[in-house]
Amino acid sequence: MDVKAAVAFKAGEPLRIETVQLGAPREGEVLVEIKATGLCHTDKYTLSGADPEGLFPAILGHEGAGVVVETGPGVRHLKPGDHVIPLYTPECRECKSCLSRKTNLCTSIRSTQGKGLMPDGTSRFSFKGQPVHHYMGCSTFANYTVLPEIALAKIRPDAPFDKVCYIGCGVTTGIGAVLFTAQVEAGSTVVVFGLGGIGLNVIQGAKMVGADRIIGVDLNPAREEIARKFGMTEFVNPADLGPGGDLVGHIIEITGGGADYTFECVGNTTLMRQALECAHRGWGVSTVIGVAGAGQEISTRPFQLVTGRRWIGSAFGGARGRTDVPKIVDWYMENRINIDDLITHKIPLEQINEGFDMMTRGETIRTVVEY
Amino acid sequence: MDVKAAVAFKAGEPLRIETVQLGAPREGEVLVEIKATGLCHTDKYTLSGADPEGLFPAILGHEGAGVVVETGPGVRHLKPGDHVIPLYTPECRECKSCLSRKTNLCTSIRSTQGKGLMPDGTSRFSFKGQPVHHYMGCSTFANYTVLPEIALAKIRPDAPFDKVCYIGCGVTTGIGAVLFTAQVEAGSTVVVFGLGGIGLNVIQGAKMVGADRIIGVDLNPAREEIARKFGMTEFVNPADLGPGGDLVGHIIEITGGGADYTFECVGNTTLMRQALECAHRGWGVSTVIGVAGAGQEISTRPFQLVTGRRWIGSAFGGARGRTDVPKIVDWYMENRINIDDLITHKIPLEQINEGFDMMTRGETIRTVVEY
Repeated sequence: MDVKAAVAFKAGEPLRIETVQLGAPREGEVLVEIKATGLCHTDKYTLSGADPEGLFPAILGHEGAGVVVETGPGVRHLKPGDHVIPLYTPECRECKSCLSRKTNLCTSIRSTQGKGLMPDGTSRFSFKGQPVHHYMGCSTFANYTVLPEIALAKIRPDAPFDKVCYIGCGVTTGIGAVLFTAQVEAGSTVVVFGLGGIGLNVIQGAKMVGADRIIGVDLNPAREEIARKFGMTEFVNPADLGPGGDLVGHIIEITGGGADYTFECVGNTTLMRQALECAHRGWGVSTVIGVAGAGQEISTRPFQLVTGRRWIGSAFGGARGRTDVPKIVDWYMENRINIDDLITHKIPLEQINEGFDMMTRGETIRTVVEY
Repeated sequence: MDVKAAVAFKAGEPLRIETVQLGAPREGEVLVEIKATGLCHTDKYTLSGADPEGLFPAILGHEGAGVVVETGPGVRHLKPGDHVIPLYTPECRECKSCLSRKTNLCTSIRSTQGKGLMPDGTSRFSFKGQPVHHYMGCSTFANYTVLPEIALAKIRPDAPFDKVCYIGCGVTTGIGAVLFTAQVEAGSTVVVFGLGGIGLNVIQGAKMVGADRIIGVDLNPAREEIARKFGMTEFVNPADLGPGGDLVGHIIEITGGGADYTFECVGNTTLMRQALECAHRGWGVSTVIGVAGAGQEISTRPFQLVTGRRWIGSAFGGARGRTDVPKIVDWYMENRINIDDLITHKIPLEQINEGFDMMTRGETIRTVVEY
């Protein structure tokens, strides 16, 4: 079938709106009409060419929501008309990882997904007869896409697509890192580095679980207001500490010895080290969420670990896609979390390149494309 | 009173056996007759001058066992005749750290201990009228020493001093890292880097909690036999992998994806990285136990953490001194752990420098001085 897509033909070039061909869903696969998709930094990172694993041509996008149109043979849990969120971290419930009870990082289709292909090793997308890669197993920058059944979370039908699409990545990544990965307890002191689309969700996650103090750190003073709205209790702008200011020392001082939990939401390796080192001696847990540039490394003195700090990371918020994503949709519908105020821009697919330009200029928290 | 001690007058020089003066125990303090003490790499590190926090002159030694001789005013839990193990990590049960339920790193006397002094800011030791520093709050290289009550674990009176002194550091550090810090579960796959006085105790800790596979890594083939005796199921000598051999890749291969738990027991920062990176994607926990040289740093790609590995550290095995050390003594007395086979040498205090020379040559696992 013909579908409308924003195609990434080459690294570093703008996306091109084209009509591409999409094959029918095969065994275990599902055809989904995408109703809305968010623009995430990861899409931009891949499009820029900086991602060494980026493949072209490809249909990017991984933060969507839509409706099941057709199911292939063997699909057991979904039927046409079901509302779904695509999962770049699937949940097969059968692999070693899913059965470990210790991780959300299902490995059942990892190798083909990493190659931009469906689990059978082929692509459903093509343009003028040439195959086009899938992206993160999702490809939500097309108004129709095909996914494996295990990569779709079934959600309630009354949830608005243009809001809950954000649960497909940013919301879950931020809230989940607090709830599922770090497992922050009530009464904790939390420090959040970077108050963007992930950091603000970390803040509302920390508020949700009853943290006492939620300290936000960002160089952009404009982020203070919205962060306070989401639950931040104190704001630290490193620029206010003056040249050579000691951010770690400052946070250790205002927290009386360090934070119980810190979260790095930027992807800056220097900040990752600072986030670890301002965690409390003896028990502070620092969670890396941000994605660093290719080849970059984090460092610290091992003494930081030996004296009780723990350095961990979170992917997709530690959330199991099919199990936890529908719960997070419920929390949104019950007004327990706020998504509306984070979606600052809504655009048609035709303006997607302008959407990325606005992201680059730091003008947006989340931009959503509505089909 | 006059006591016999091995005094470290200067960094890099041999210890000198001297008669030094010891003041009476003050408020909250206890005079202990040391009956036996182990020689640990940390003593050697400080004596070498490489420890930037080393203070001289000092009476080193921190792995002892002895008998209470006299108690100062206000001592509530100990009386003359009680058998005790000195604790370089005290347990006051009143500070923020002790009350956190999350760490064993009591901070009540940390600042004075770091300065080589008793909690009131003075030293009990002197030589020819000049003060001599305490070391790690213990100073067990003297046949009598004074410690705060909170830095003494009361143990059963039938435990032999020349064996259980080792519980004052090495045994607890190794077994505790498995039981208290990493909390290894039955059925786990464990990799231990470095089969010395700590690593062998990690192995017996892993066996105690029911690990399925216990893989030991050491460049010294002579360590295989004793490690197998303590519970190691597989031995990897990195030298056997040939020049440029890929230790991480090899361990990931033989474990089918990485180990559930890894432990670095050497203090080598390259090994610390390897230990992290051969932990299993999604849930592997790597625990740093070894103490790295001053200023050395650990590094990795943050992707290692984001994909679910956890980098943590352990000091004194995460054990609470007064609570857990008496339990470990019981385990030894009940033959649940083996200490006897780890104590390869026993010497009088007069031969302490030869003891350190043997350690340097790698001829010992543990050498114990018996007074």
